[in-house]
Amino acid sequence: MEADPTTTAIRLRLTDAPSALADVLAAIAAAGGTLRTLSTPRIVDGVAETELEVAGISGQALDSALAAVPAVREREETRSLERVFGKRVIVIGGGAQVAQVALGAVSEADRHNLRGELISVDTIALVGEENIAAAVRAVADLPRARCLVLAGAIMGGSITTAVRELRERGMPVIALNMVGSVTDAVDLVVSDPVQAGTMAVMAIADTAQFDLSRQRGRRY
Amino acid sequence: MEADPTTTAIRLRLTDAPSALADVLAAIAAAGGTLRTLSTPRIVDGVAETELEVAGISGQALDSALAAVPAVREREETRSLERVFGKRVIVIGGGAQVAQVALGAVSEADRHNLRGELISVDTIALVGEENIAAAVRAVADLPRARCLVLAGAIMGGSITTAVRELRERGMPVIALNMVGSVTDAVDLVVSDPVQAGTMAVMAIADTAQFDLSRQRGRRY
Repeated sequence: MEADPTTTAIRLRLTDAPSALADVLAAIAAAGGTLRTLSTPRIVDGVAETELEVAGISGQALDSALAAVPAVREREETRSLERVFGKRVIVIGGGAQVAQVALGAVSEADRHNLRGELISVDTIALVGEENIAAAVRAVADLPRARCLVLAGAIMGGSITTAVRELRERGMPVIALNMVGSVTDAVDLVVSDPVQAGTMAVMAIADTAQFDLSRQRGRRY
Repeated sequence: MEADPTTTAIRLRLTDAPSALADVLAAIAAAGGTLRTLSTPRIVDGVAETELEVAGISGQALDSALAAVPAVREREETRSLERVFGKRVIVIGGGAQVAQVALGAVSEADRHNLRGELISVDTIALVGEENIAAAVRAVADLPRARCLVLAGAIMGGSITTAVRELRERGMPVIALNMVGSVTDAVDLVVSDPVQAGTMAVMAIADTAQFDLSRQRGRRY
């Protein structure tokens, strides 16, 4: 699940038309690069500002390839989001619990980031089985997501199904000790939310001595 | 800065080769669609799992267009990340302060999300002027980012420059009351970190009566 270490990042301003990105991708492919990530945070007056991360070619090769695309108006080298925000712990659930898990996770990430790690903690407070199940499924599509923490008081049904699907895709899941079937479907159950956030960060930090696979099915 | 409301999302499993995504983009462009977001969370045994969000065409049209691309092995309709995780408040700074800003922001986001908003709170604890300045600049490339909160005790120099650049791109910035020049460059300075997180969410919630533009330059 690791990103390609040779990924290079570039920010483009380009004509906002369907053919523009097709031309960009054709040029990248011709140079031997593979697009890994693209986002379009802004579109102003028919010009899209787009950030691309490309694997398999150098920053210079990428820049030269895109210099020949007429739709590309400006190019600016950037740092890949992997190099800025690193791996992500995702916290989903109710506001009170999400905030406490975040407290533990942010504090622990701070300690590891000081030693050269790069871990961010991303949260969403949601209500309702279907909303939470959809969010759990969507973690599979979140770039750089490495661990999910479910922070609530009751979760089951379609949330439990979504957790099983997500784990099949290789994503570890930690849950607070709570009502419902979800605690039977996760890797680890932790009663204290601050501890749950701390353990989630330890589980993905290369600077920590903590192997989630050895804790599978346990409850703390 | 809003995402196109007609964006449709699809998850693909496709051959991991430079030409594969070029073919995908050519097919999308031929159908009149424009790629807005792409992520590649997993690559296993030469097969990339890729999530795409495309504007300008229906989900059915996108699906038919991609059915004809040989490199695409599987297609699965998903929800766009905008519809799952919504707008993002980004909190950057030192662990102690980031955790407290997150506490306020998550609690406030919870209240708005219960009323139909969709706001997530994403954080990274970092140390060092260059690391923080790079993270501030990179917020411009984060999909769905709508407000930045700087949570630290001292920030200036290249961080202040990065804040001015980010605000020129239309991103509002709130800072804690702290040492350094950054407080002169932001939209709003708030002394209490919980309050800063709360105000950041209020600033981007359509369900809140709070206009950041009317608070510009003020300190609380």
